[in-house]
This record gives sequence, structure tokens and C-alpha cells, in this order.
Amino acid sequence: MNTPPSSSSPPLRSSDEQLSGDPVRQGLIDYVLGLGDDALVAAQRMGEWIAASPQIEEDVALGNIALDLLGQARSLLTYAGSLLDPVRTEDDLAYWRDAHEFRNVHLVERERGDFGVAIARLLVLSTYQCELYARLRTSTDETLGAIAAKAVKEVDYHRDHATMWTLRLGDGTEESRVRMQAALDQEWAYVDELFDGGHVPSALLDAGVVVDPATLRDGFDRRVAEVIERATLTVPDVPVATTGGRRGEHSDALVSLLADMQVVARAHPGAAW
Amino acid sequence: MNTPPSSSSPPLRSSDEQLSGDPVRQGLIDYVLGLGDDALVAAQRMGEWIAASPQIEEDVALGNIALDLLGQARSLLTYAGSLLDPVRTEDDLAYWRDAHEFRNVHLVERERGDFGVAIARLLVLSTYQCELYARLRTSTDETLGAIAAKAVKEVDYHRDHATMWTLRLGDGTEESRVRMQAALDQEWAYVDELFDGGHVPSALLDAGVVVDPATLRDGFDRRVAEVIERATLTVPDVPVATTGGRRGEHSDALVSLLADMQVVARAHPGAAW
Repeated sequence: MNTPPSSSSPPLRSSDEQLSGDPVRQGLIDYVLGLGDDALVAAQRMGEWIAASPQIEEDVALGNIALDLLGQARSLLTYAGSLLDPVRTEDDLAYWRDAHEFRNVHLVERERGDFGVAIARLLVLSTYQCELYARLRTSTDETLGAIAAKAVKEVDYHRDHATMWTLRLGDGTEESRVRMQAALDQEWAYVDELFDGGHVPSALLDAGVVVDPATLRDGFDRRVAEVIERATLTVPDVPVATTGGRRGEHSDALVSLLADMQVVARAHPGAAW
Repeated sequence: MNTPPSSSSPPLRSSDEQLSGDPVRQGLIDYVLGLGDDALVAAQRMGEWIAASPQIEEDVALGNIALDLLGQARSLLTYAGSLLDPVRTEDDLAYWRDAHEFRNVHLVERERGDFGVAIARLLVLSTYQCELYARLRTSTDETLGAIAAKAVKEVDYHRDHATMWTLRLGDGTEESRVRMQAALDQEWAYVDELFDGGHVPSALLDAGVVVDPATLRDGFDRRVAEVIERATLTVPDVPVATTGGRRGEHSDALVSLLADMQVVARAHPGAAW
């Protein structure tokens, strides 16, 4: 059921190698891969909670969120693969790329941490995605617009869920408050990367195909600050971490995550297994 | 959000300690716990596949199956907990019992194995559950009947899914055929335990409250043999494994699984975390 990329299929090219290719098309591929990889990697990490959250009800909720994210990843990777020449499938892209070919942000790839970290991360990711997909709905690229229109309803629910928990933990016991603040402080170092649009070709922005991530920052700051303050917590002020996920620069945590995710598919390339 | 059992709450009593209690009520509790624990433990193992199946589409399918099983576990554990004195919640029962208090069969607790094992195990479990829940729908216990009526639709889908993969792998490549047969052979040693009704009080059977597992065997054998033969595979003939899950006798694999599942809830007993 899985076929490895044929020997003639070129590796994904990173944007800065495209001087002789079509940099706008490649920019779009990288952009869509970035969104798809964010969702795919976040889903894997979230899936780890199905067995481990502090309530069975929460296992179910986080499991459903993981499945929403997997669904978004499928649509986005299928679309990115259709833009490649030769075309590649979602499974090709999920299972046959190495870490340096992934375009996700560091926020989603790091070790899962405690339950507070899971919630802080989901609050940041879903608030960003709400802003992003609300705007992308009106993309001049119809496929991207349709994917965004479906995704925005899902991530809005994810944000509600993360908000409910942030309030509950932030305004709960002294211990839960301290741990929720620590989780926010830890995740906050990875917020800036979400809004770095340095990799997006201006031709795509001018044509209304994609959204400049930098323009989403104000809305994100406003909405997330409101939740954090209602939870009697403090918006973190921490040094920005070194990242580079949109350029394929990743941590060892992604390498381990991919090893788990890809082992079954890679063990039997081309076999009906 | 989680509270540990209060110090006055007695440990679950096993059926053979009930001479001075109400053995019929305890038999019902053990019976419902058995079904609930089967679903809970199977869901945890299945959840591990969200990150690791050979296709993203299959990640989603197995994730949905895990969530169905978690939902069934919630209903069953909530019901079992309501019969205890004092009453215990689903979370109490999921997170604050040790391995010897679990009543699940060994089929669901063993290490996850390869993808063929996942499919063979799901085929066995779901075929058994189809027979079981179809019959339990008419239980004279209304709660159990209602849980069964909802569950039977879900496990019927699980069986279809496992059937589809058994056919695809069994009648696929030579390697997939060999591995699928090996997976069936391995899981088959744990089939007998599903149909052992030695722990069920006859008063519950006579009153039409529960179903004698032994009476489900013919239907199971017929349905599962039909799938295995269509897949050009052979119904295994292997020695029966030593089990005892319905009496609380478990393997180290359950101890490890529970350690993962329970660590967050137990780390902060009584705290809003």
C-alpha cells in the first residue's frame, strides 16, 4: 500500500535552491508543506496523550483534536504533493521525507512535556491557526481557501478547549497555577517563529494566494493575552529560541518522532504491508 | 480535577472474597468491569497506532476506533462505579486501580506488535464484541442494554475495517500473507479466554442480565473463519495461552501500560491538575 518515491523523483528543493526553477511555485509548495507539517507533527504529539491525560474524558477530547489535525495534514500534504513534479502522495510526503525536508515550526515538534505544556502549546497553536485560517479562507487559491474554510471551524474548537483548561489550571490551585505559568513561559520562546514570513515569496502575497504570517501577530497577541489574563496568569516575556523549522532546521525531537512515525511504512517499501 | 479514592473507599473485591457480601451484585460489577477494561486497555494500545500506522488514512481510522473504544470504556466504567458502595467515578476506576484489580482479557493488554498483529487482534476482539453486544442489547438490565445497543454499531464498523485489512494482507503479497498468518497464529492463543464464563454467577445468567460468553463461541468461530478463509489464510490451531485476566491475573505488559496511563493522574492526587 505504500510505495517509496521512485528513483527518478527528486528530493524536495528548499526555496533558496530555486534560482533556476519556479520560485513562486516552490514558495507555495513550501508554504503549504509548512502548514501541513505543523498539523501532522502536532497530531503525533497530541496522539501521545490519548493514553496519558489525567481524565478519560480528556483523552477523548485530545484524541479528537489529534484526528482533526491529522485530517488537516492530509488535505494540505495531498495538495502540496499535487503541486510537485512528479506528483507525490500524502503518504510519500509523510513517510519518505527526512527531518530536514519537514517545514513545521519548532513549537509542535518538541517533547510532549506535562499536561500544562500540552495545553499551553495547544493554546498558542490553535490561536495562531484561528487567525491564519480565518484569513486564508479568502485565498485566491481555491483549494487553499476550501481547506482553510473547513479547518477554521476545527481550530476554533481547539482554541475553546485550550482556553477552558488554561482558565481552569491558571485559576485553580496554587500548584496548577505555577505549573501552567511555567508551561506558558516555556512555550513562549517558540511563538515568534509562527509569525516569521521571511520564507514567503512576495509574489504569492501580492496575488492574495497566501497570508503573510507577520500580519497575524496583532490578532494573536490580543486574543491570547485576553485568555492568559482571565486565567490570572502573565503573558510571558522570555528570550526567543533558535528555530528555523520553515527552512528545514529541526531539533533531535523531530528526528525521534519521525523514526516512530515512519518505521512501519519504511520497513516494507513498495509492499502491500 | 482528579480525586483519589477517599481513604474510606474499599478496594475492589474479587468475586471469590464475597461470601459475606452480595455475590450477584459483585458478579455484575466484575462482569461490567471486564467489558470496560477490555475496551479501555484496547483503546490505549490502539492509540499507539495514531503515530505509527503505514498510511495517514489508517492512522485516522485506528484513531477513531480507539476513540470509540474509549467511549465504551467510559460508559461501562461509569456504570460499574455506580454499583460500588461508595460510588466511584470512571476516572477513579481508570487511574486508581492497580493491575491486579483490572478485569480485561490478555488479548488486549499484550505489547502492540506489528501492523498485522494490530489487525489480527482487532479482528478477534471486534468479532467477539459484535456477538456479545448484539446479544446484550436485550439484557434485562436497561443500562447494560443501552450501552450494548450503542456499542454494537461501533464494533460492527471495527469488524468491517479489520476484515478489509485481513483480506488485503492475506491475499496480498507473499510477505504480507506470511506475516498476517503469523499474527493470527500469535493472537489465537488468547481467543479461548474471551469465551470463558467461569466467573459469571448463574443467577445473572438466569435473570437475563448478562450473556454467558461460552454461548458466543459458535457465532464467533463461524464469522471469523469465513473472513480468514476468504483471505486465503488458515484458522490457527495453536496451544491455548495461560491467562486469567478476569480474575485479575495479568502480564507485565499491563503493568507498563497502566504506568503510562496513570502517571499524570497519580502525580497530583486531589489537585486540580
